Amino acid sequence: MKRSKPGSTLFSNLNTIIMWEEINNSLYKKFEFKSFSEAFGFMSRIALAAEKMDHHPRWTNEYNKVEIWLSTHDAGDVVTEKDHQLAKKIDQL
Amino acid sequence: MKRSKPGSTLFSNLNTIIMWEEINNSLYKKFEFKSFSEAFGFMSRIALAAEKMDHHPRWTNEYNKVEIWLSTHDAGDVVTEKDHQLAKKIDQL
Amino acid sequence: MKRSKPGSTLFSNLNTIIMWEEINNSLYKKFEFKSFSEAFGFMSRIALAAEKMDHHPRWTNEYNKVEIWLSTHDAGDVVTEKDHQLAKKIDQL
Amino acid sequence: MKRSKPGSTLFSNLNTIIMWEEINNSLYKKFEFKSFSEAFGFMSRIALAAEKMDHHPRWTNEYNKVEIWLSTHDAGDVVTEKDHQLAKKIDQL
Repeated sequence: MKRSKPGSTLFSNLNTIIMWEEINNSLYKKFEFKSFSEAFGFMSRIALAAEKMDHHPRWTNEYNKVEIWLSTHDAGDVVTEKDHQLAKKIDQL
Repeated sequence: MKRSKPGSTLFSNLNTIIMWEEINNSLYKKFEFKSFSEAFGFMSRIALAAEKMDHHPRWTNEYNKVEIWLSTHDAGDVVTEKDHQLAKKIDQL
Repeated sequence: MKRSKPGSTLFSNLNTIIMWEEINNSLYKKFEFKSFSEAFGFMSRIALAAEKMDHHPRWTNEYNKVEIWLSTHDAGDVVTEKDHQLAKKIDQL
Repeated sequence: MKRSKPGSTLFSNLNTIIMWEEINNSLYKKFEFKSFSEAFGFMSRIALAAEKMDHHPRWTNEYNKVEIWLSTHDAGDVVTEKDHQLAKKIDQL
């Protein structure tokens, strides 16, 4: 498992939260960008990945911030392998 | 059940909530579409309108649903004329 | 010249060219919208459909106009069933 | 003026053409990305910038490639300051 050590620069991107967290049966992560444009470019790419997997996030955007919750409706709104897959794809964008 | 009265054009779209509501110092409206694709096409057009006005919504999407909250940060997170303008533009999409 | 027969619903959209044409081993169609916003909303939805099918168009946009050429690279840049499928999906948007 | 010296790595991004070229009264540049997703994320951000400036490109996309032509219709389809501004914004994305 990856760990974020003190002083680690592994996760030195713009994200305010380093790892996906499991909160209330969802994988959750908050991303922060420099501008709305950058945030929306990111959202466009997530939309493509989500539609391709037929697995769509719940997400909130406000200016340069994007919050994402992933859970699998068909499985009773719990976290499944599909959510981990989409989380991984999002991190690779 | 909803009924569309003769002459009324209020109910001619897919929106589940007809009018913007003022909730907690925000203009709020929920939209519902047939698919994620339709919802995201709508979001893309809102993004263009918002960037043009330099006035960005807080919004949440989950598959075919889009919820939007409009308020003006610079004015202390209250509803201003800018919010009404963006609300009107969104309704015209 | 193309004619719209009485009772026909074929011509009820904004498209300037009604049917896909096969030109130089591509399916070609030109769409015309009211605004850039409308054209780009349409393009966003095509992008989702194309990524889902793993079959991407060649397309040109200029303000309110979108031109699309569909052909299958893997088959030697000729028109295949995949192109007809994507054309049909685009028409359904 | 910027010059691309032989061996220079100043422009070591993914673009196949380093500078905007003036071709047939348009500023022209070709961009190449790793995937359609990356190309479309880029296009989404250009769409926002273009709509904000009320100055829209002619552009062609095919999978991971984006070609852009900028000229000013109102000035008789020649290259103006507006085109240089949008070109600069696109390069900053």
